Amino acid sequence: MKTTILINCPDQSGIISSVTGFIHKKGGNIIYIDQHVDKEAGVFFMRLESDFEKNIPAVKNLKQEFENELAQPYQMEWSLHLGSVKPKMALFVSKYNHCLYDLLSRYNIGELEVEIPFILSNHSDLEYVANQFEIPFFHVPVTKSTKDEAENRQLELLKEYQIDFIVLARYMQIVTSKVIDNYPNKIINIHHSFLPAFAGAKPYHAAFERGVKIIGATSHYVTEELDAGPIIEQDVTTVTHAHSIKDFITKGRDLEKIVLSRAVKLHINRKTMVYNNKTVIFS
Amino acid sequence: MKTTILINCPDQSGIISSVTGFIHKKGGNIIYIDQHVDKEAGVFFMRLESDFEKNIPAVKNLKQEFENELAQPYQMEWSLHLGSVKPKMALFVSKYNHCLYDLLSRYNIGELEVEIPFILSNHSDLEYVANQFEIPFFHVPVTKSTKDEAENRQLELLKEYQIDFIVLARYMQIVTSKVIDNYPNKIINIHHSFLPAFAGAKPYHAAFERGVKIIGATSHYVTEELDAGPIIEQDVTTVTHAHSIKDFITKGRDLEKIVLSRAVKLHINRKTMVYNNKTVIFS
Amino acid sequence: MKTTILINCPDQSGIISSVTGFIHKKGGNIIYIDQHVDKEAGVFFMRLESDFEKNIPAVKNLKQEFENELAQPYQMEWSLHLGSVKPKMALFVSKYNHCLYDLLSRYNIGELEVEIPFILSNHSDLEYVANQFEIPFFHVPVTKSTKDEAENRQLELLKEYQIDFIVLARYMQIVTSKVIDNYPNKIINIHHSFLPAFAGAKPYHAAFERGVKIIGATSHYVTEELDAGPIIEQDVTTVTHAHSIKDFITKGRDLEKIVLSRAVKLHINRKTMVYNNKTVIFS
Amino acid sequence: MKTTILINCPDQSGIISSVTGFIHKKGGNIIYIDQHVDKEAGVFFMRLESDFEKNIPAVKNLKQEFENELAQPYQMEWSLHLGSVKPKMALFVSKYNHCLYDLLSRYNIGELEVEIPFILSNHSDLEYVANQFEIPFFHVPVTKSTKDEAENRQLELLKEYQIDFIVLARYMQIVTSKVIDNYPNKIINIHHSFLPAFAGAKPYHAAFERGVKIIGATSHYVTEELDAGPIIEQDVTTVTHAHSIKDFITKGRDLEKIVLSRAVKLHINRKTMVYNNKTVIFS
Repeated sequence: MKTTILINCPDQSGIISSVTGFIHKKGGNIIYIDQHVDKEAGVFFMRLESDFEKNIPAVKNLKQEFENELAQPYQMEWSLHLGSVKPKMALFVSKYNHCLYDLLSRYNIGELEVEIPFILSNHSDLEYVANQFEIPFFHVPVTKSTKDEAENRQLELLKEYQIDFIVLARYMQIVTSKVIDNYPNKIINIHHSFLPAFAGAKPYHAAFERGVKIIGATSHYVTEELDAGPIIEQDVTTVTHAHSIKDFITKGRDLEKIVLSRAVKLHINRKTMVYNNKTVIFS
Repeated sequence: MKTTILINCPDQSGIISSVTGFIHKKGGNIIYIDQHVDKEAGVFFMRLESDFEKNIPAVKNLKQEFENELAQPYQMEWSLHLGSVKPKMALFVSKYNHCLYDLLSRYNIGELEVEIPFILSNHSDLEYVANQFEIPFFHVPVTKSTKDEAENRQLELLKEYQIDFIVLARYMQIVTSKVIDNYPNKIINIHHSFLPAFAGAKPYHAAFERGVKIIGATSHYVTEELDAGPIIEQDVTTVTHAHSIKDFITKGRDLEKIVLSRAVKLHINRKTMVYNNKTVIFS
Repeated sequence: MKTTILINCPDQSGIISSVTGFIHKKGGNIIYIDQHVDKEAGVFFMRLESDFEKNIPAVKNLKQEFENELAQPYQMEWSLHLGSVKPKMALFVSKYNHCLYDLLSRYNIGELEVEIPFILSNHSDLEYVANQFEIPFFHVPVTKSTKDEAENRQLELLKEYQIDFIVLARYMQIVTSKVIDNYPNKIINIHHSFLPAFAGAKPYHAAFERGVKIIGATSHYVTEELDAGPIIEQDVTTVTHAHSIKDFITKGRDLEKIVLSRAVKLHINRKTMVYNNKTVIFS
Repeated sequence: MKTTILINCPDQSGIISSVTGFIHKKGGNIIYIDQHVDKEAGVFFMRLESDFEKNIPAVKNLKQEFENELAQPYQMEWSLHLGSVKPKMALFVSKYNHCLYDLLSRYNIGELEVEIPFILSNHSDLEYVANQFEIPFFHVPVTKSTKDEAENRQLELLKEYQIDFIVLARYMQIVTSKVIDNYPNKIINIHHSFLPAFAGAKPYHAAFERGVKIIGATSHYVTEELDAGPIIEQDVTTVTHAHSIKDFITKGRDLEKIVLSRAVKLHINRKTMVYNNKTVIFS
């Protein structure tokens, strides 16, 4: 049984040998270990993939022993994930279909180890895509006056379908703290600029106006401050004076879908940890 | 004789055929033509490389005829550059030597078609590099109280040596309008960030703080507003959570020197035009 | 009416002014001109986008006049394409769906100015994708003994649907000269390596074996020699020792679909010309 | 005292916990751990950076204990490197100066933690660069008839100056097994193509001929088979039909110097291990 453990705790000598010794003692074979120390903050991060021969019932004991022998003495925040459990991902979209198609075609060939219980949108334009892939679609319109009500409906659906994390695949609405607080570091957005440049609305227009020679896309966890959450993944492409804003948008679509998909895969594979509004991305 | 003509004027039908017809009539063979229309501004840009068999005395006539037959009817701003004339480039540096070495080693093997009459610095640290390459070095210290005097000295030297353009190869001083106004779109800076992100001081520290996954460098013409001039060239490189600020600085040096050198070569080869605080970069 | 003219001919002085003069005289406004001279071969290439106010009936005259006044004196090979005519593209696939989904989702949002009369495959696996997008699907199985017959069937369909060009979107069969000869420089393939490295079968396995640090994808026109036709577009991504062959394949899919789509768009927009087994790609 | 340990051995369960337990027991604080398993070959690789408070005399004991307690039971090949010892690097060059200047300017600002006892060349053209940086220069001409003698002289110098590794900074001579056998995986070459494409002479000419859209550079350890040794680092840049072979060469110089410098830094920082003609590059 493949198991992934994520740990962060105050840095001190001996953590690695203690943790690896524990895994070995419990009959686990360490497949991959990656660790990082934030020297300024004095914080230690670790991701461990192990293979245990034991059966699932033993996991509960393992967790308790880990808690007693390691987590408490080292003041760890930690989590253990079984390879056999697929996280549940909700997709929020508006009218653009490129990120949605990209994610669904990956899902379709088994590239993403998730379940997708539903797709939600404030418009009905993309219902046909949901139908193409036979995934339930919920149309939850949002207007200024109904925003609160709409978010209540979103929370209901998220709860009902036991959603683990949300992907905003070009969902053109601001998500408020009402939803964010229920999914801290569990909402992944794609912003169509090389953040922190051009945060907010119409980044391609702003990039065009400034005359940049490179445009980008940024996937990040959503926090209350707009486009200011922990960055998961970024990529860029070159542009020239000959490109119009429309060209920026077209070239940008390719960036957006690739960058968002990479971020989603990192999240699914438990390769991200968040600290101080920054991410540790394990290899 | 190789000749490069740069033109910008209000866009209208027939410019290209008029200009190419003129060149052909005067015995020139067009080697390369590149053109751009800024549709929003309604401005036409063109760069023409031609080969004339005529002798230099005829250039004067050619210019007069171009002025009468084309420039005036089409309201052109234009310039004609002879391939035989090398522009004179002054290098301003402070204490970092990577951009300086990179430019001088290119100059040394004939990659840059310029003369370098002198290197100027507010410190004497890099005098040894100037000596290695046997280029005159002027130490012009700058303090708050002597800034005005220092810029006077700079202008004297620039005039005395008939400098055509200035490269700030990590010159860590703000250049004021006193100098800029004498060299409009003739001062090339390298900023160690992906502008417009992280303008101003300590961009690597700011990038580290924000947790970006990509850092960049930007070469631009210097205008009065700090780090806001027309962008000539940009490039980026990936970073991870594992990189310290010191790593950013080290990786950034490679970006800075390559991006600055590319921008300098574009300028030398008359491949840049500036309009509305943006550049047209000809291919 | 937007019109694109492609020209190649022996290089000589005066072509550009003759052509641009002709366009101007006929009432056309040149929107974009791009030209290239292959100095070794002494061949001139040009792409001209013009806007004519005239009606379609006049196109016939225009073509005749161009032929008489320009094409014959300059020994041009040339073609004229009206912006109003969408080329017809056939898609050939096997079992992988990533390139197919990518192209169809672009088609779906109007990014590709083509018609797609049908999708053809040697397997029936991807019929469901054709159905999702409501495009006719033909299953034409290929075995060693039926290859000839299968290609006859392909040619029939290509002729019946008046196909202009074919895209091999991971079609895992070798196309013979029987088909190629009918579509010279009109069959676009995507090869999953950075050609000319790793031509032929299983390029990711070969790249893994060699221990490269970068993998690539190459889109090219199909010629009789396998993976040796004129290259249209290439791109690469980094890999490390930690990536397995399976990782190469997964990372490679993103390259393949983006590179193929770029090549298809260049072809659709008449931005490619082939000469001496190489391409000129207009900007 | 900073210490780096490199290990490779047959893969088996428990290695990581044994090694990290050993380091901890001996009073070392693990700063960084990176590990890799080549699953096909069944080989385990590890790089450990540790900080020991102990004095240098204790290192000898440490090594003996590591040998007894870990290396023998696990059949490890291993090495221990003290951060205080700078390796000695010899530079071999011919006539091109760009890689040489790039390495020396990095050395000059302390970016490379090495000593450079000498520069050697088969020509005297670059003696002036050695003089600029006040590094001994040896001119060892090589002709067909004197190659053997020249390599004897090289080996003498390498031995006399206790050289740890050699960098071929565009040294345009084939190095024979006579030298290679004395420096296995200790000779770093830069080849000006994206290997395995265009191995051997004149790769830019071959790339131009093939019409590629991307060119590359590859740094690798030298083995007897030409340009076929373990790849350390690669990078690429785009080219177009408009670039001449001369342009390829100019653009390539920037690639060559950056790629070679990265490879040299990886080697100096003990981040490379070689196995089965491939490299493991630690992060």
